[in-house]
Amino acid sequence: MLERFKVPHEDQVRVPEDSLRETVTAVFEKMGVSPEDSVIGADVLVSTDLRGVETHGVSNMLRSYVAQYNQGDLNPRPNWHIVREAPGIATIDADRGLAVILGPKAMGIAIEKARTVGVGVVTLFNSGHSGGIGHHATLAARQDMVGLVTTAGGTQVVPTFASEGRLGTNPIAIAAPAKSEPFLLFDAATSAIAGNKLQLARRVGANMLPGWVADREGTPIMEESPVRERGQYFQLPLGGTREGGSHKGYGFALMTEILGTMLSGVLPTMLDPSGGSKHSFVAYNIAAFTDVDDFKEKMDRMLKMLRETKPAPGFDRVLYPGLSEYEEEQDRRANGIPLHKEVIEWFDDITSELSIPRLRVVDSDR
Amino acid sequence: MLERFKVPHEDQVRVPEDSLRETVTAVFEKMGVSPEDSVIGADVLVSTDLRGVETHGVSNMLRSYVAQYNQGDLNPRPNWHIVREAPGIATIDADRGLAVILGPKAMGIAIEKARTVGVGVVTLFNSGHSGGIGHHATLAARQDMVGLVTTAGGTQVVPTFASEGRLGTNPIAIAAPAKSEPFLLFDAATSAIAGNKLQLARRVGANMLPGWVADREGTPIMEESPVRERGQYFQLPLGGTREGGSHKGYGFALMTEILGTMLSGVLPTMLDPSGGSKHSFVAYNIAAFTDVDDFKEKMDRMLKMLRETKPAPGFDRVLYPGLSEYEEEQDRRANGIPLHKEVIEWFDDITSELSIPRLRVVDSDR
Repeated sequence: MLERFKVPHEDQVRVPEDSLRETVTAVFEKMGVSPEDSVIGADVLVSTDLRGVETHGVSNMLRSYVAQYNQGDLNPRPNWHIVREAPGIATIDADRGLAVILGPKAMGIAIEKARTVGVGVVTLFNSGHSGGIGHHATLAARQDMVGLVTTAGGTQVVPTFASEGRLGTNPIAIAAPAKSEPFLLFDAATSAIAGNKLQLARRVGANMLPGWVADREGTPIMEESPVRERGQYFQLPLGGTREGGSHKGYGFALMTEILGTMLSGVLPTMLDPSGGSKHSFVAYNIAAFTDVDDFKEKMDRMLKMLRETKPAPGFDRVLYPGLSEYEEEQDRRANGIPLHKEVIEWFDDITSELSIPRLRVVDSDR
Repeated sequence: MLERFKVPHEDQVRVPEDSLRETVTAVFEKMGVSPEDSVIGADVLVSTDLRGVETHGVSNMLRSYVAQYNQGDLNPRPNWHIVREAPGIATIDADRGLAVILGPKAMGIAIEKARTVGVGVVTLFNSGHSGGIGHHATLAARQDMVGLVTTAGGTQVVPTFASEGRLGTNPIAIAAPAKSEPFLLFDAATSAIAGNKLQLARRVGANMLPGWVADREGTPIMEESPVRERGQYFQLPLGGTREGGSHKGYGFALMTEILGTMLSGVLPTMLDPSGGSKHSFVAYNIAAFTDVDDFKEKMDRMLKMLRETKPAPGFDRVLYPGLSEYEEEQDRRANGIPLHKEVIEWFDDITSELSIPRLRVVDSDR
């Protein structure tokens, strides 16, 4: 994550992993979610925070989930069910359940199918937010499979040349296991920047960079400027302008609409604003394609070569997707997860309101 | 395609589709390729030219294939074979065959598997160039399936922050059928620009734009400048700079290495320069996921809404991937395919050398 998005040191309060899990689980339970599902939801969010992906962890997301449960937009006890199925695929109606919690179940079904026929594809529609989809992809990687997850939903992104929002930030994630190297995990919005990053930028007082957003008429803003209010901008596809390749970001966003939305048999948000999020979960069983141990050794060789690549002037090192997040996780497991003090205040308010124990923080006798 | 890449009008010679098919088929046959495979190869290349994708049609590619057959780098009669298989997947060793010709066969196997289990994934390694992979994806779309194709190979692209080339331009393509609207076909390099476009830019005298390439130390060149000689630049991932999202283009490139290379059980080009190209071909059987007719109607509604979106100031209309290529195809089927006069000269040389009939052109008594 760019430095500009990190919580400033003076605003950080460190929270132990187990404490955050307990509190988030308790919040889900108070929303009416079953104890078992509450643990799953907390695991997805806290795992994402552990890897430093603040945008999709508890700080940015939990309060909006609470609001959606309270408003009845999310169903805490969804009767999710498979509507169509074949040996390698399934289509699931989420019954307005949160995809943070249903994602691991959908990926679990994809993994079982991949064990049988070599690959499993599960689409999930009529759901709430998925959280950081990279987490769901890693569930396959932990079973010696390649995991691929896509999400579609929203209309805040303008197609190339357009002046009206038509697409969500529609992310794509892939995870693949290695032997000794930390596993590869790529998880990125197909827009120039994730929507949550703009909120985070506002919170930490950072500017937007050229090519991240367009004005209300669809013209890309190509100079650095303060974060505008919601409704005063559209997001741009990855690439920013046509010359920079925005038609590619736009195409990748449409790929997620094909794989998640169309293969679910539903309409995209641009045609059905109330339709919720749509996802696809794919598991490729490595053992069906090749030798698993050999695959992991080759992954090690590739990942090592990438991180040992000579950096360009002005940079310390070359990363691969998932490496800095792995390193962050080691630090956060040991020293706690740094949350913005405003997030701690929100936790204090919500735990008081819901009559659950206060969130414990590191090095504090409060 | 950007205007800057189009063949200037005064340099164009229009060639009838059937004439181009005949000549390209004859060239393949003279390379030792079987008559049946020669027809397939010509179909892939000419179909790509018909859609206006000059970069991957006959003009840019055929001469390099001829050179590779002549040098023995390509096997005209490959003993391609499945090395591992399950009901939903297969891994194929291409035996140094051209993936332009083997791509349709691999996608055909993926389609058959998708008919049985709902999805089919075929990886192909140890092969030559794939041509425009979008064509292979459309083979699934024509069978009421979604087609997804990836290709990996090469080291001309620098990872974010890197000063050494590690990845190819590694494209990703997806095709999905509609009912009345021209089908969606997205086919794009995960680099800021396709490698072939730089050659095309040099041929037509166009400049490179900011964020397309880096200098030899890996520093992105952020001003417009003439196309450098090969070896004097690296290509940049889609996004150009870290701030513009190049880590996402880099991640998408790695996705193709996971799906094509690692699942084939082989090493990427960065670790094995002689390993050829690696591909993955995926067919999603729409009928397994949802109702096919309903899928196509929903596609129509989405594609229509996209192309009717109000354009931003300075632009005539909003496109969706595949729309302008469809329109180009109508024109080219009727009026011939415009090739650069230098390409015609090359055809005259090669047909003379191989003792095959000269390429017929439109409106000429030559």
